Amino acid sequence: MCRWLAVYSGSPMLLERALYAPAHSLIDQSLHSELGAEATNGDGFGIGWYDEQPTPGVFRSVEPAWNDANLRELAGHISSSLFFAHIRAAIGSAVQQTNCHPFRHGRWLFMHNGFIADFATVKRDLVLAVDESLYPEIAGQADTEVLFYLALTFGLEDDPPDAIARAIGLVESVGRRRGVEYPFQGTIATTDGEHMWGFRYSSEGKSRSLFFTRHVPTLRTLYPEREILQEVTEDARLIVSEPIGDLPGAWEEVPESSYAVAGKGDDELRPFKVKPPTSAVPITP
Amino acid sequence: MCRWLAVYSGSPMLLERALYAPAHSLIDQSLHSELGAEATNGDGFGIGWYDEQPTPGVFRSVEPAWNDANLRELAGHISSSLFFAHIRAAIGSAVQQTNCHPFRHGRWLFMHNGFIADFATVKRDLVLAVDESLYPEIAGQADTEVLFYLALTFGLEDDPPDAIARAIGLVESVGRRRGVEYPFQGTIATTDGEHMWGFRYSSEGKSRSLFFTRHVPTLRTLYPEREILQEVTEDARLIVSEPIGDLPGAWEEVPESSYAVAGKGDDELRPFKVKPPTSAVPITP
Amino acid sequence: MCRWLAVYSGSPMLLERALYAPAHSLIDQSLHSELGAEATNGDGFGIGWYDEQPTPGVFRSVEPAWNDANLRELAGHISSSLFFAHIRAAIGSAVQQTNCHPFRHGRWLFMHNGFIADFATVKRDLVLAVDESLYPEIAGQADTEVLFYLALTFGLEDDPPDAIARAIGLVESVGRRRGVEYPFQGTIATTDGEHMWGFRYSSEGKSRSLFFTRHVPTLRTLYPEREILQEVTEDARLIVSEPIGDLPGAWEEVPESSYAVAGKGDDELRPFKVKPPTSAVPITP
Amino acid sequence: MCRWLAVYSGSPMLLERALYAPAHSLIDQSLHSELGAEATNGDGFGIGWYDEQPTPGVFRSVEPAWNDANLRELAGHISSSLFFAHIRAAIGSAVQQTNCHPFRHGRWLFMHNGFIADFATVKRDLVLAVDESLYPEIAGQADTEVLFYLALTFGLEDDPPDAIARAIGLVESVGRRRGVEYPFQGTIATTDGEHMWGFRYSSEGKSRSLFFTRHVPTLRTLYPEREILQEVTEDARLIVSEPIGDLPGAWEEVPESSYAVAGKGDDELRPFKVKPPTSAVPITP
Repeated sequence: MCRWLAVYSGSPMLLERALYAPAHSLIDQSLHSELGAEATNGDGFGIGWYDEQPTPGVFRSVEPAWNDANLRELAGHISSSLFFAHIRAAIGSAVQQTNCHPFRHGRWLFMHNGFIADFATVKRDLVLAVDESLYPEIAGQADTEVLFYLALTFGLEDDPPDAIARAIGLVESVGRRRGVEYPFQGTIATTDGEHMWGFRYSSEGKSRSLFFTRHVPTLRTLYPEREILQEVTEDARLIVSEPIGDLPGAWEEVPESSYAVAGKGDDELRPFKVKPPTSAVPITP
Repeated sequence: MCRWLAVYSGSPMLLERALYAPAHSLIDQSLHSELGAEATNGDGFGIGWYDEQPTPGVFRSVEPAWNDANLRELAGHISSSLFFAHIRAAIGSAVQQTNCHPFRHGRWLFMHNGFIADFATVKRDLVLAVDESLYPEIAGQADTEVLFYLALTFGLEDDPPDAIARAIGLVESVGRRRGVEYPFQGTIATTDGEHMWGFRYSSEGKSRSLFFTRHVPTLRTLYPEREILQEVTEDARLIVSEPIGDLPGAWEEVPESSYAVAGKGDDELRPFKVKPPTSAVPITP
Repeated sequence: MCRWLAVYSGSPMLLERALYAPAHSLIDQSLHSELGAEATNGDGFGIGWYDEQPTPGVFRSVEPAWNDANLRELAGHISSSLFFAHIRAAIGSAVQQTNCHPFRHGRWLFMHNGFIADFATVKRDLVLAVDESLYPEIAGQADTEVLFYLALTFGLEDDPPDAIARAIGLVESVGRRRGVEYPFQGTIATTDGEHMWGFRYSSEGKSRSLFFTRHVPTLRTLYPEREILQEVTEDARLIVSEPIGDLPGAWEEVPESSYAVAGKGDDELRPFKVKPPTSAVPITP
Repeated sequence: MCRWLAVYSGSPMLLERALYAPAHSLIDQSLHSELGAEATNGDGFGIGWYDEQPTPGVFRSVEPAWNDANLRELAGHISSSLFFAHIRAAIGSAVQQTNCHPFRHGRWLFMHNGFIADFATVKRDLVLAVDESLYPEIAGQADTEVLFYLALTFGLEDDPPDAIARAIGLVESVGRRRGVEYPFQGTIATTDGEHMWGFRYSSEGKSRSLFFTRHVPTLRTLYPEREILQEVTEDARLIVSEPIGDLPGAWEEVPESSYAVAGKGDDELRPFKVKPPTSAVPITP
């Protein structure tokens, strides 16, 4: 549906190093993705990055990423040690900036490749479950934005895996009561600017692809001549929908129903288990 | 906040005749409005028109109307005997097509100059009152779109003045319970393609301006040399936020708390009285 | 590079009948073209159509055709008996409306799939050859627009095949003197609203694809159940970069170095021969 | 016509400090300019800034500056010690990114408030005078872009005042031979990233307004409580079309036919005299 890229480089790097330079880059994938459900991801894009400011910057546009002169320009001038990028293939909701990922709340960013199935059928129930104080922040009509606000409602800022497990749990519970066979599909990335989490899960058990770079020290041994591997810190990591670059040994697949964490000195691959709502889900009459 | 124009010409006319040709045209008002709350209405625009197709056409854009080459072009090629045009001055919601007026549902169009006060505070309660079957159609985040779906919920297609009176009644009731002093402000236009209604109302009793053309036979007597007055039918009417053209005798102001109707053989100016909800309004805890 | 569609239907038809309805429609080709040099044609689009107005209407946008809500809307409301549509895959020039096809001058429209090779190298010489009175009309930076103004300079309005033969002749002459091996590539469509011409030519002799529908009476015999074939006139024709629809017997390929004409009662397939400049081409020092 | 702002702050500052924070900021001027020839400058905008990269960054958009969410975002995340900003009121040429200022060539930026009179009449002669190697870089159709390439042709990179004097000299010479009474009007800003030059000149001698901040030490004495004056270096300067902020003693007007220079340790206000072409100007027959 979409493709995304989450980069923790440890030390500041120009966004173009990750977005444009590699073979089969994310920008190339906007025109020709190989592993995506859709070959073309031309319905807008977004980037989010951390710097010294209190909240991350976000730049989103409805143009295809491949032809956007401003994105090219900004990627050559903005440096960050943790940044997100997303290219969109819309499936139903309008092509408008407020539907482009990443979504932001305070210091948090969130993006998604996949969908909430039969969203029109379940949207109202899900929106009602969003915390009332967060509700006015919902600016677009994308399923992912609602998922993000559900995760925030369920404590994303305190425990991301738990909050996302509960948000998807609600989506599945509401969906099934509304007759949706496989309510959720996708991979999700979220970050607070220090760590980033990448989830892979679908109700059907056939999730969108997700990849994680191997340890930098391992990669340096494999590819000693690659400058970029000398420039990033030892704990640098990329999580991506679809591998970029031309280093075949660089990637390992994130398994079904699991999540990866990366960030300063951190590094994990863990099982992910959805948490159904404990109380009855209110279904509006 | 915005400016709008509703034209019932009785026989097909090119949109540019009403949009661009007159002195102080709506397009001029996008750059320099005289009576508006804002001098500039450059945050997008929209037109809606009826032809032989089952539903009206709608063209909306985020560009300022004054510099949009496509609007200029379409206005010179699209003819209609009933059409709407709206120029936007955004106050809070994003500049995106899904927030541009006119809004459409089936054969109905709806547009508004004004606002629901403290919309972030009351939005959730109002959205919850929209009929569940209509809810998934809400595509943007504008207060006017929610007002439109409330009016549809309350029977706009059967009795527009009643439905709008009840929709604004709900807005006022919810607003006041949420501590909003003057919950509603504005003028509203709606049409089913045969008749059009123009409402002027505000909780404060100081509503945005609204004007109505006098009878065509009267105008023909006043301005016998004006070709346009010979081309339209006797029952032709314009309802506008702010007069256009250079015929000082052409306009009468629609009084506070009243509405005008126009259309085939029809013509009325009536008092408008808001209808508060009969049952207690549910306020979410 | 691009894809285009030229329709002479003889009697007015809604644009959506040709643009959206057929299998493998032009809009589908914007996302996935099969025969094009590029699979994706998402760098803007344009339509041009004739009605009762003195000049054709043109609507152009930088959005991909597949996701443009306004194009969808207009195609469902604009009827014409002769119209052009073009989807763009940019190769060098900016994605902006003034670079989108079709280009217009008076009653003439012009569009192209292909390129002038090494355009930066030859542009100045070519632009200098445009008639001085036409020069200020050049609004964008696309090679096709320059080609159009060259054709106008050489008499497009009087004899289209001659003017285009001379325009391409100049392109080849200048190109070769500037060291370009194959200066021109492509298919071209032009029309005055009554007839339309489709050219297929390249310096290399390996031109972009071009197809022409067979006679309507023949098609009616082949596909008696197809309503659309009953609705158009007997002399209706489509000229397209790539076939649309699901009628395998509907199309014949326009051969290399030839052109097709269609329009009221008219119908021809003729050889096309480029005409080199008779006098020395001025090359700026 | 337009408004612009050129900032040399000596040490990096967030763009929003100059673009959004001051009273009557440039962003406010996009909606309501007081001294401009046009009150509204809503036909696109652009910013250009220097950082550690070899060429300055440029971000341009066709949206009005006042409602552009991306500009707001970027201004809160991009820091620079020398940057340009421009808001456009188009007079003839299309609203497209390639017509938005600032224009860039290598390390140079260029922007303008004003016009080349009767540009359609003189454009061809002027474009022909652009150095042939620079010609292919002209990407839009704006008079200012042609002026920039003329200045580059005349040695902008070596001696900006001389090159601009000669470029305007050519404009005046060609214009007068083409019957234009007052060929040039406006203020111009240009920079190489170290120094910036602001010119005020018009053929008529009634030029657009231009202002220059007084010395920082003087301003610090006048306004000791203003933090921003402590943060910038002693040689910091702003050159603007129209004053921003609320410090009445901060500005001095740049006189007619003069130019200001600012930059590291530098500071001058000098007379500006146009230099007519020494040889006969070639006028195309």
